[in-house]
Amino acid sequence: MLIKDIKNPEFLKKLSNKELMNLSNDIREFLIRSVSKTGGHLSSNLGVVELTVALHKVFDSPKDKFIFDVGHQSYVHKLLTGRANQFSSLRQFNGLSGFQKCRESEHDPWEAGHSSTSLSAALGMATARDLNNDDYSVVAVIGDGSLTGGMAMEALNNIGDMKHKVIIIFNDNDMSISKNVGGMTHAFSRLRSSEKYLNLKDDVKDALNSNPTGKLLLKGMISVRDSIKKGIIQDTIFSEYGLDYIGPINGHSYNDLIPALQMAKQHHGSIVVHVITKKGLGYEPAQNDKKGVWHGVGKFDVKTGKFIAKTPEGMKSWSEIMSDELIHLASENDKICAITPAMLQGSKLEKFNKLYPNRTFDCGIAEQHAMTFAAGLAKEGYHPFISVYSSFLQRCFDQIQHDVCRMNLPVIIGIDRAGIVGEDGSTHQGIYDISFLAGIPNLIISQPKDAKEAKDLLYTASCTMQPFAIRYPRGIIDDCTENGELVPIGKWEVLGNHNKCAIITYGQDVDRVYSKIKDNNLPIDVVNARFIKPLDSECLLKLANEYDRLYIYETDVKIGGLSSMILSFYNEHQICKPIKVFGIGDHFVEHGSIPELRKQEGIDITTVLETIEKEL
Amino acid sequence: MLIKDIKNPEFLKKLSNKELMNLSNDIREFLIRSVSKTGGHLSSNLGVVELTVALHKVFDSPKDKFIFDVGHQSYVHKLLTGRANQFSSLRQFNGLSGFQKCRESEHDPWEAGHSSTSLSAALGMATARDLNNDDYSVVAVIGDGSLTGGMAMEALNNIGDMKHKVIIIFNDNDMSISKNVGGMTHAFSRLRSSEKYLNLKDDVKDALNSNPTGKLLLKGMISVRDSIKKGIIQDTIFSEYGLDYIGPINGHSYNDLIPALQMAKQHHGSIVVHVITKKGLGYEPAQNDKKGVWHGVGKFDVKTGKFIAKTPEGMKSWSEIMSDELIHLASENDKICAITPAMLQGSKLEKFNKLYPNRTFDCGIAEQHAMTFAAGLAKEGYHPFISVYSSFLQRCFDQIQHDVCRMNLPVIIGIDRAGIVGEDGSTHQGIYDISFLAGIPNLIISQPKDAKEAKDLLYTASCTMQPFAIRYPRGIIDDCTENGELVPIGKWEVLGNHNKCAIITYGQDVDRVYSKIKDNNLPIDVVNARFIKPLDSECLLKLANEYDRLYIYETDVKIGGLSSMILSFYNEHQICKPIKVFGIGDHFVEHGSIPELRKQEGIDITTVLETIEKEL
Repeated sequence: MLIKDIKNPEFLKKLSNKELMNLSNDIREFLIRSVSKTGGHLSSNLGVVELTVALHKVFDSPKDKFIFDVGHQSYVHKLLTGRANQFSSLRQFNGLSGFQKCRESEHDPWEAGHSSTSLSAALGMATARDLNNDDYSVVAVIGDGSLTGGMAMEALNNIGDMKHKVIIIFNDNDMSISKNVGGMTHAFSRLRSSEKYLNLKDDVKDALNSNPTGKLLLKGMISVRDSIKKGIIQDTIFSEYGLDYIGPINGHSYNDLIPALQMAKQHHGSIVVHVITKKGLGYEPAQNDKKGVWHGVGKFDVKTGKFIAKTPEGMKSWSEIMSDELIHLASENDKICAITPAMLQGSKLEKFNKLYPNRTFDCGIAEQHAMTFAAGLAKEGYHPFISVYSSFLQRCFDQIQHDVCRMNLPVIIGIDRAGIVGEDGSTHQGIYDISFLAGIPNLIISQPKDAKEAKDLLYTASCTMQPFAIRYPRGIIDDCTENGELVPIGKWEVLGNHNKCAIITYGQDVDRVYSKIKDNNLPIDVVNARFIKPLDSECLLKLANEYDRLYIYETDVKIGGLSSMILSFYNEHQICKPIKVFGIGDHFVEHGSIPELRKQEGIDITTVLETIEKEL
Repeated sequence: MLIKDIKNPEFLKKLSNKELMNLSNDIREFLIRSVSKTGGHLSSNLGVVELTVALHKVFDSPKDKFIFDVGHQSYVHKLLTGRANQFSSLRQFNGLSGFQKCRESEHDPWEAGHSSTSLSAALGMATARDLNNDDYSVVAVIGDGSLTGGMAMEALNNIGDMKHKVIIIFNDNDMSISKNVGGMTHAFSRLRSSEKYLNLKDDVKDALNSNPTGKLLLKGMISVRDSIKKGIIQDTIFSEYGLDYIGPINGHSYNDLIPALQMAKQHHGSIVVHVITKKGLGYEPAQNDKKGVWHGVGKFDVKTGKFIAKTPEGMKSWSEIMSDELIHLASENDKICAITPAMLQGSKLEKFNKLYPNRTFDCGIAEQHAMTFAAGLAKEGYHPFISVYSSFLQRCFDQIQHDVCRMNLPVIIGIDRAGIVGEDGSTHQGIYDISFLAGIPNLIISQPKDAKEAKDLLYTASCTMQPFAIRYPRGIIDDCTENGELVPIGKWEVLGNHNKCAIITYGQDVDRVYSKIKDNNLPIDVVNARFIKPLDSECLLKLANEYDRLYIYETDVKIGGLSSMILSFYNEHQICKPIKVFGIGDHFVEHGSIPELRKQEGIDITTVLETIEKEL
């Protein structure tokens, strides 16, 4: 069958292992070709081809429910559930989501985008099933990276104590996005290489092969299970949480996968199926990738494995600009450290790590721990920079508030991917952080308009003994070779010839909107609110007194954002002036390109300036 | 030495074990007598008397650093570090904090109030120590309850992988606040009862006893360590995280504790010392308490063990009112469930649990998992009520946003202890939740003025297929025997005779302020903004049109609070009206009685009404 013609996974039931292998090849070819044209998550999907096919062969979706942790590895699942012909729209405006999406298919019972949620969701669903006296399987597929996230361990602990059965597929590729870290990885390695397990796997296979169907099969499996129980099950990290375990299973062999999944399906109680997979399998550049370059990719040439988009000469990503300046600061200040929760590559901290390995800390997918670890370093006189994507920063909200800011510790929070991020969609939009951070005392929140100001703010943060957040977006910007200089905290900058109309904005839109104003000779000033908190009260009073019309143009959610703080400030000073606010409304923002989404939200520069021009 | 005369822990060095035992008795007597007069945390402190004394005997604070997880069990530590004479002011305005507090003493290197942060902090400090080439011990004392919090497990995973030595005292009393839950508790039980460990403990003791000082001692210990390594260390949950382990140790025997701590001090690399303690030891009512009644207490009579404060006839705690209505709803709607993260007693869900054990879920100290577990239940058609204290809700911010609200799932979030909570201080104030929740799409945020409205809102939430938060404060309120009725979502209520001046407020202050207005015949209306989100736009427009003066009286932080949303609303409608706002400023609020703190923040009713009267 052609991949495009797959309507649902029914057809798998009749296929032999050999036919399944052919299908796997077709799927890999489809994935590589399709992702090369749209961009998307490649490595993780190539790694779970056989696993996903085997799941659909053994279980009955949508009756049985598959929850893919994070969900970026659900492409094969999408192909097998009739969505192949939408793949050319993957991650595009109104197109197929890059994650599981309930409204796309009845085969997606859950959605995510952040890691480590699948086990809690699965336990909730399994509990509902049992309360309803229903009978189906709930299967969570979770990687070794996600398993080190605290909430996954909380869930393991709870699942191990409850009678509601969850099947946990432990998809072990020894990677999170890039190399995995943490003490547990050694425990996983021990499991992975255990001879005993490998032998047992053969036992299971033999038992199942000799009892192909029905009760005999079950009986065989129970005895195998008992023998596992007696022999080994006590020794895994999972059994410490009260969970049964089977594995490790070769995640690319149907001969191994199918019996193991059948056994898990029949098993009484929750069980962990440990499946060893190889990220990127079947596409050499991805297969050999140790850094995570092929985790999420742009368009690429299939033959050469070269990415099509190139960063233009003289430009760099915002993350890189920050990292460059951090390296500079670290060379002069030995208290500067860098911390990342499993995002060394994404946050462009690899070079820093090479130069200052003792001052670089990759804490794994563990935002909570990473933030309080930063607080501990700061408490003892260090000045850590912790880089977290805006949407993942939600995971350590309490640690920012209770540990860093309550104790007023000098932690620099690099809020990467702030603002609309585009193709990753609603789970990744970095548009909420101002809103949830602004209410935290002691925290400075800033955003630079360009590379130089990014460096200025980072340098300023390194001279400031209090929590200091610097937001910066996804994407690239003109590089700057100068070093950072001190910016007075809470001071804004007014661009223009003192017209009677001003737009208060922040980030890269300052220059963008100002350049368009100049191009069109519009009588409008632009205020660079590089500090979102504290506000520049002097500037705000001056604006109120000397300008007729004020506009606030914020590129994040309006509720609790810059406009709400400015309006409260003016109200406190009994200044009454209606101010038109452009910003994102009270709803989630789906996937699409950044320009498309900005247009949809009415926060593209054209819409903003056209609206203002009409009022001039 | 009298407890009151202790200046610092130096004197312990010279005391024999017998003298230490006498001291323990004195400490217990002091604690029981003192806490009986002030209220505070009793059981946990009685449980760690010997442990804390032994820590101060073996280690050298403040050079060595002690971090008590949560910190409510640091009373003994406070006594030993010269703070006994401040104990009569415990948890009072400007008095001694009930938690570790850096500004109180150089012996407090860290502060907390929320659980499970100590390991991350300790690793941060240990890392700073090693980067500085310094030489001291960092000791984290963490209970078995706190250890099931996700961030503690994230930290274990990171500590096990790093060379920076942390000493983890695993204070195992088989309780969190009340009974412990989770699969790990079984692993802990296995450890606890292991004969092998108990024997080893004797080995350690013998080895140390025969080599009392210097290198001989060290040598003895290393060989003991090696024998432990060979024998057992591989089998604990801690070794799965890459951590060495010694235990279990009788936490009330100096003969056992001191050698074990000395060994941990000399050990190369991080180590877990498993100490078994008995919560409440030495005070019978506390010792026999299984429910956690003696965890945090008010004043009590030492002889009878009876609490002095009694809930007056006809009054109930807000938590109890909510729980009563939940029981009523559950009797008519079999989709209603109750979820608590280890707060069955505090959230008054015990009765619900007795009536509906299959629909009650205590997830342990695991707010993140609990919230997404609720989302999973909701996704499959259940309607869970999850009760979390406002300040602990910070721990599951991402789960509320990414899992519950993004998927628009019908989870009812009971935000208990909302507003100023008083004696627990800055780590527990429930004054931030409106600010961090308001920016989340799909979430309804409400707060009832009285018991009847609490029931109305809960009933309304149970009829609403979207996320619905109901805030309610610490404290008691007049009971109400009626059942809940439907309230139109987003509809406010205006009390008064249509005066020209109105105060917009919410919660129990609605009736309090209105009754004072009536008593004083003031020409002021009171608007009950029972829905903080969505706002009642119709009412707001009417207020703007028909009233001369508006006031907003919010009892939480102003930034991102009700006033900021109202001001944005008016601005959007081009209504310019200066509105005086009473609310909490941009700072943390320390401990004290609720009335004292409200007065300090200028949000007591007297201040509010006096200010308004002057403007009338």
